[in-house]
Amino acid sequence: MPMPQVPFDDRGLAYGDGLFETVLLRDGQPVLWEYHHARLAKGCQRLNIPLPSAWQLSQAWQSPPEAALEVLKLILTRGSGGRGYALPDQVAPRLLARRTPFTANQSRWQHGVCVRLCHLRLGHQPLLAGIKHLNRLENVLARQEWHEPHVAEGLLVDQAGNVVEATSMNLFWSSRGHLYTPRVDQCGVAGTLRAALLDAGMIHEAPLAVDDLPSVERLWVGNSVQGVWPVRELREAHGCELATWPRFAVDPLQTEAHRLLGYPSVFP
Amino acid sequence: MPMPQVPFDDRGLAYGDGLFETVLLRDGQPVLWEYHHARLAKGCQRLNIPLPSAWQLSQAWQSPPEAALEVLKLILTRGSGGRGYALPDQVAPRLLARRTPFTANQSRWQHGVCVRLCHLRLGHQPLLAGIKHLNRLENVLARQEWHEPHVAEGLLVDQAGNVVEATSMNLFWSSRGHLYTPRVDQCGVAGTLRAALLDAGMIHEAPLAVDDLPSVERLWVGNSVQGVWPVRELREAHGCELATWPRFAVDPLQTEAHRLLGYPSVFP
Repeated sequence: MPMPQVPFDDRGLAYGDGLFETVLLRDGQPVLWEYHHARLAKGCQRLNIPLPSAWQLSQAWQSPPEAALEVLKLILTRGSGGRGYALPDQVAPRLLARRTPFTANQSRWQHGVCVRLCHLRLGHQPLLAGIKHLNRLENVLARQEWHEPHVAEGLLVDQAGNVVEATSMNLFWSSRGHLYTPRVDQCGVAGTLRAALLDAGMIHEAPLAVDDLPSVERLWVGNSVQGVWPVRELREAHGCELATWPRFAVDPLQTEAHRLLGYPSVFP
Repeated sequence: MPMPQVPFDDRGLAYGDGLFETVLLRDGQPVLWEYHHARLAKGCQRLNIPLPSAWQLSQAWQSPPEAALEVLKLILTRGSGGRGYALPDQVAPRLLARRTPFTANQSRWQHGVCVRLCHLRLGHQPLLAGIKHLNRLENVLARQEWHEPHVAEGLLVDQAGNVVEATSMNLFWSSRGHLYTPRVDQCGVAGTLRAALLDAGMIHEAPLAVDDLPSVERLWVGNSVQGVWPVRELREAHGCELATWPRFAVDPLQTEAHRLLGYPSVFP
């Protein structure tokens, strides 16, 4: 399949005027598709971009799978046209899709990961928070803050001092046996695995000040493609160790998340 | 000249991971080029994208002009590659250029314009403020707030309540005979005309609370392509009139700005 292209005047390129989804395909079928579809619809509503039909979207997984697991990336832009930031009279969105084989990182499921805090503080913009739009420079800048391969993710704190997410994953923690995830109504992305876990009543939204992060009972990062990684080690942005956690014998969050994604649960 | 294209995996499309410049060409030669170049260089430094050579950039205006005035749009992306937000080992930036004939709006120079306040509040992100990056959804959303053709621009206020800029222009005002422009160190774009006027000592940076906007002596919006439009009428985001200004017989800001751009100054 040749790689799709967009022209110079596509507004996705010019302004990041569009949305994307990254979907796990298992045997050619999308996992948690209803959640991806709902988030795309919400993004279209916020940005005022016409939502493609379910049929149009489903064309992205009609060809036979090349691997048992693939990642489908969908990009939906507002298309071309308009004078500067002003919209064209007729918006003709551009939908692009690409599939690549995927292998999950079982070692990170099993042994957990080391994460670090990022220096960058996420700005607040409630009009863009939660949706998966194409303006991702904060994530790109944050991801440039470390190069050590053993650091699996960077945690993002907002300008109010609350932990929000990781650069490409949501964040989960436990306190007194309850499971939580930060709100994403000022910044951050409302991940589809996060949404499914909220719907299942498994987790609840709560704020988490960065100063309270080292003392949480347990910490995880996760998304709908990679599954859930228990955090074993937390480092400061300068690299110093802040906290460590053991690998727990029972992990109900990973178990439920992996059930939703069709992944095995891994215990020590 | 065929329209340039970028592939699906270009990071400018995927994340808005890049920069742009919109340059006035007069008889095929860029106007205020040193300022555009300086801003592009600053953006490259902030985002850690290699700056193309002066020679590479100048290829964009080597063909004969199609009109006395043209707009040159340059897009510089980080190119393809990398795993997610992480950068590729070797960054190969992609430089794209497009020229289109341009006609300045002399009526707006002469008679001034009506502007309105936007509801959207710009978020703060000092790491991205000032540079002309490709993450422009705030501008796109703000520009959707009005459809009246006689409203020439929308004024953007930040989350602290300060006026910062217009959706595609910088803002200037006078107070006790001195000329000012808002700081753009938390959000907004540092326009090249604004930079040239600052260098010339014509204007100075100062904060302007949105509540003080209706009582300024004079107000202008301007950029390096359109020149300077005196503001004659200011409307609230709901459309109600907030303030009006007469067309002054002498306009030193427009005179100096238009001298820099090679445009005439227009008096009533």
